[in-house]
Amino acid sequence: MTESPIGIFDSGFGGLTVAREVLDQLPHESVLYLGDTARAPYGPQPIAVVRANALQCLDRLVDHGVKALVIACNSASAAVLADARERYDVPVVEVIRPAVRRAVSVTHSGRVAVISTRATHQSRAYLDAFTAAPAHVRVLSQPCPRFVDFVEEGITSGPEVIETAREYLAPLQEADIDTVILGCTHYPLLTSVLTYVLGERVALVSSAAATAADLFRVLTDTGLLRPSGSEAPTHQFLTTGDPHGFTPLARRFLGPEVEHVARAYVGRPEERSA
Amino acid sequence: MTESPIGIFDSGFGGLTVAREVLDQLPHESVLYLGDTARAPYGPQPIAVVRANALQCLDRLVDHGVKALVIACNSASAAVLADARERYDVPVVEVIRPAVRRAVSVTHSGRVAVISTRATHQSRAYLDAFTAAPAHVRVLSQPCPRFVDFVEEGITSGPEVIETAREYLAPLQEADIDTVILGCTHYPLLTSVLTYVLGERVALVSSAAATAADLFRVLTDTGLLRPSGSEAPTHQFLTTGDPHGFTPLARRFLGPEVEHVARAYVGRPEERSA
Repeated sequence: MTESPIGIFDSGFGGLTVAREVLDQLPHESVLYLGDTARAPYGPQPIAVVRANALQCLDRLVDHGVKALVIACNSASAAVLADARERYDVPVVEVIRPAVRRAVSVTHSGRVAVISTRATHQSRAYLDAFTAAPAHVRVLSQPCPRFVDFVEEGITSGPEVIETAREYLAPLQEADIDTVILGCTHYPLLTSVLTYVLGERVALVSSAAATAADLFRVLTDTGLLRPSGSEAPTHQFLTTGDPHGFTPLARRFLGPEVEHVARAYVGRPEERSA
Repeated sequence: MTESPIGIFDSGFGGLTVAREVLDQLPHESVLYLGDTARAPYGPQPIAVVRANALQCLDRLVDHGVKALVIACNSASAAVLADARERYDVPVVEVIRPAVRRAVSVTHSGRVAVISTRATHQSRAYLDAFTAAPAHVRVLSQPCPRFVDFVEEGITSGPEVIETAREYLAPLQEADIDTVILGCTHYPLLTSVLTYVLGERVALVSSAAATAADLFRVLTDTGLLRPSGSEAPTHQFLTTGDPHGFTPLARRFLGPEVEHVARAYVGRPEERSA
């Protein structure tokens, strides 16, 4: 079982920043990534649809024999975590709670912000996860709708994205926020822009890094870690969309480790038996 | 000038974690890395030797036309920063001060630790950099001599490294430290082990990440950033030692972006003219 890959699921590309952190923090582990790009983005869809689609994808990863599941999609994390824990025997890790736990321990003033897509903002998934936070913690949720486009177009520096970031982040600065959760898996690629605009005294909490650390803990505690000194791991990338379109963007998000991208047919019974 | 690479210098491999962060945070930039592996480690050598060797390496990078210099070596950072700023026209960034600034802003209790090699511990370079810290900040310097060997042997998970980490970190836990600076560029590869042992309430400050953010700020403010939408960057890796020995370890530290590794002859005049 230790030899089995870690299954990482996202609606699209963003989860590749989580996969990048997993490769960095767990370099002996093999990864099987599935991006449901054909049905992305999940955010604007009804929660029942998100849940059904996500479970189909997770089923597919479990069919492949993964030893753990990472739900690397903010929209799916809140919608499907409880179902996934009930449905599968393997450990399930997601992206919202590790980031929230870390933000609570990082903040001094208790003034925390979550920046995200509009859909995640409207879902209130992060606000819900802060339910049990200490009384002094106040959370500001700030949608940053254009950030995903900037990242997907490769614009992660320069005046245009800096100016946009200044606009989005002005309410955070007015509120004297000291800790910001990157509530979208695309945003780690904007780390430098965010630090530049907010200053280095504002702590950035990356869901990707917090999730990879959480996965390390779970695998260590369950004895599922692949031993150091194993053969080099192998990584595989699946998309429900066009593999040729997927590859260049995936390389930008994760790096040249993205070699083999294959098409996955998920959720259509006539193709699932293929 | 914006098209020129960023020169990153280290005594060996560790600086590749800084290079990794630069690739992540500044994905449009080309990197020219020089590891002085033939004369590594710098730590145990007299400061005058460290300074002379480091300046030879930085000269070499400047000869190659780099637009900025990153001193990604803890031993060299303190020894040579002032000299390098005087000697070169390009901006110079190093690894100690960005991490110290960040740690000061991150800590709640003011109880900060620096973990490092024995040589960095003895140099007191981090303690010196904390000179102007607020009065409530107290710094514990903890050498972790076996960590570099673990990382270079690829042992970044499992009971042996976890047990060693527990021993090294016990004094930090007794002192109720809330913030830990990774004062050796090898240590980002142990992030998960450190988080596992210390718990996620202890903040880890990576010199690599803080330095890359500092570099972004410097390049943005000086107008030296390569524009988004440029051709794909090219990375080059030089070692004063054996390129064949360098490559596999360099791939583990940085990733498959390490393709072309060449030998650099530094500091021997008869070969420098070649």
